[in-house]
Amino acid sequence: MATIFSKIIAGEIPSYKVYEDDKYLAFLDVFPLKKGHVLLVPKQEVDYMFDMEDEDLAGLYIVAKKLAAAIKKAYPCKKVGQAVIGLEVPHAHLHLVPLNDIGDLNFTSEKLKLAPEEMQEIADNIKQYL
Amino acid sequence: MATIFSKIIAGEIPSYKVYEDDKYLAFLDVFPLKKGHVLLVPKQEVDYMFDMEDEDLAGLYIVAKKLAAAIKKAYPCKKVGQAVIGLEVPHAHLHLVPLNDIGDLNFTSEKLKLAPEEMQEIADNIKQYL
Repeated sequence: MATIFSKIIAGEIPSYKVYEDDKYLAFLDVFPLKKGHVLLVPKQEVDYMFDMEDEDLAGLYIVAKKLAAAIKKAYPCKKVGQAVIGLEVPHAHLHLVPLNDIGDLNFTSEKLKLAPEEMQEIADNIKQYL
Repeated sequence: MATIFSKIIAGEIPSYKVYEDDKYLAFLDVFPLKKGHVLLVPKQEVDYMFDMEDEDLAGLYIVAKKLAAAIKKAYPCKKVGQAVIGLEVPHAHLHLVPLNDIGDLNFTSEKLKLAPEEMQEIADNIKQYL
């Protein structure tokens, strides 16, 4: 069964895209921990990130590095943190989150509730640095 | 100034090593969230992971994949999660943590307190699968 991320990749579900190439797609997390919280996914549906082929796994982190640079410019922070949990959506995804405090990467915290216009503004803000 | 991780790499501070090659070192986090919580670091001292050269960054995740497979055998779990925060020790490090629940990757939770014998047992347990 197609995951929600595969539906986003196929364009069946809208998303706030920030980056796309042949193999990877990045878009805003709709339940952001912080403004600038991006999800990066491989287009090929794979549940567990470490089941990806070495080359595809490596390529994902090269894209992540580019994205993190753009996120950091758009949302100045100490570092762009990374998390891969994967217990909710069975499609490998890397969280990239602007961090100023260790608690900023706590997924049990309450998520931001942002209006669609604000989400689009965030996506545009990041995209201008890519 | 040398970080604590550089001192571990240089052998000036003891650690529970699980993996080592020319470029990377993996050892147990001394403040583990779960049994099997491993830190993977590049031997070259770099503060922010995304400042690593593409090739070195990619290589770190190929090693992480091998380590995660061993951790998962030693400590059966749904997935081995990943986190990079980096606000405490200024030497890039990837946390690999056996996950069964989304809260298992919450760094604000209380850490396990394990005796040295138990830490060594955990390191040996993981190493046998590498």
